[in-house]
Amino acid sequence: MRVMLTNDDGIYAPGIRAMHSVLAEDWDVEVIAPQGVQSGTSHAITIRHPVLWHPTKISDGFEGTAVEGTPADCVKLALHHLIESPPDLVVSGINAGLNTGVHVLYSGTVAAAMEAAILGRPAIAVSFELYRDMDFDAAARIAKPIIATIAKRGIPAGCVVNINIPELKPGWPKGVRVVPMSTQNMDEHIEKREDPYGRSYYWLSGDFQNYGDPNETDRHAIGDGYVAVTPLQFDMTDSARLKMWSDLKITLP
Amino acid sequence: MRVMLTNDDGIYAPGIRAMHSVLAEDWDVEVIAPQGVQSGTSHAITIRHPVLWHPTKISDGFEGTAVEGTPADCVKLALHHLIESPPDLVVSGINAGLNTGVHVLYSGTVAAAMEAAILGRPAIAVSFELYRDMDFDAAARIAKPIIATIAKRGIPAGCVVNINIPELKPGWPKGVRVVPMSTQNMDEHIEKREDPYGRSYYWLSGDFQNYGDPNETDRHAIGDGYVAVTPLQFDMTDSARLKMWSDLKITLP
Repeated sequence: MRVMLTNDDGIYAPGIRAMHSVLAEDWDVEVIAPQGVQSGTSHAITIRHPVLWHPTKISDGFEGTAVEGTPADCVKLALHHLIESPPDLVVSGINAGLNTGVHVLYSGTVAAAMEAAILGRPAIAVSFELYRDMDFDAAARIAKPIIATIAKRGIPAGCVVNINIPELKPGWPKGVRVVPMSTQNMDEHIEKREDPYGRSYYWLSGDFQNYGDPNETDRHAIGDGYVAVTPLQFDMTDSARLKMWSDLKITLP
Repeated sequence: MRVMLTNDDGIYAPGIRAMHSVLAEDWDVEVIAPQGVQSGTSHAITIRHPVLWHPTKISDGFEGTAVEGTPADCVKLALHHLIESPPDLVVSGINAGLNTGVHVLYSGTVAAAMEAAILGRPAIAVSFELYRDMDFDAAARIAKPIIATIAKRGIPAGCVVNINIPELKPGWPKGVRVVPMSTQNMDEHIEKREDPYGRSYYWLSGDFQNYGDPNETDRHAIGDGYVAVTPLQFDMTDSARLKMWSDLKITLP
């Protein structure tokens, strides 16, 4: 299998190195990833500026292309230009931090996989709960059989598989659950501060404290110590509402 | 009605000024928008840096708060902190350029509306086809009865209404169509160039040339000279796939 590997924490991040090391044992892996940290960039693309890239050697056996752009830029550049023939699979990660619930919308890791799906390639995003002394190698070993099973089963056009791995406490993960994305909002805080010149600024922080979803979701799975596997798609049409509004009559001026 | 108005072209852009002028004739409008151009930023949020903001007077009757951040930052800041009680509606636009098809995923204009929906507010994004001498005032006059009709009908929780207005040729728009988002890829080009130091860079460009969707979509409506109204939602779960994969068995190492 030929795999294109990218991420949003940048090509020097420990997560992508661990993922590369484990995937490259069996598959051909080509790394095309952002030069720097791109956390929270969502599906941003660079349209008003040029994007530079350069071959980069991170360590023995781990070389790739560093792109001075966003995760979605990396995928566009790779699939349109840098990779000669389409890869069998695009993997994005391992991200340092979960991409569950509405974080899916902010995530550069997931957006890279979404971009691959838009361009017609099967894609998987892998994220790992943030905590002290995260063992990315262990997380990559957990991710690999999930990736292999899903790739074998086949990812249909337009679908992205979002894998989230919980903190590796003893006995965790307990298994794998296929679950929907939570749509609950985060418990967010805006901290207002003043800079040394007296100007106001704010700092955003937040956490998933609210497990109030009526159904079993990715956040429940993680909270219970399971790996969450969530099939996503990029068609954002609200189909139920579309039907309900088919009779909408609007007179224009 | 109390309306929060934002955009992704920045608080000085002609589109938001035209929208403000027309909406403020009947409603209380509060403007909280990015300081600078934020096109293509998608749903990016600022988490590693502080965000500054300051009251800004653009012209007589048009004042607001300029935020040194993304469109989603503006909405978070406004709804969590700057606006005392939740507005009845959040409007994002008018954007200079369509946000149809997969552009929905890249769009800061739509992401601002999505962020409002995440935070539980009804939200509408308005975009206008890019061409020479765009008449934003005319576009705002077209958008207003659509916004009013939809607001009266009610936007349910989690739903965002995406309005796209075609070029104002004589006789256009011919009317309004309620249509799904196209999921076809753009006709993209990567132009490879060399900088003055011999380093490679690429410039992304692309256009919607492909009207090959099997169904009536936002892009068809625009191509035919109609305003496209598309209800969107931010739950990206692929529900059909979720069901099909309920039997997925994966053994972890």
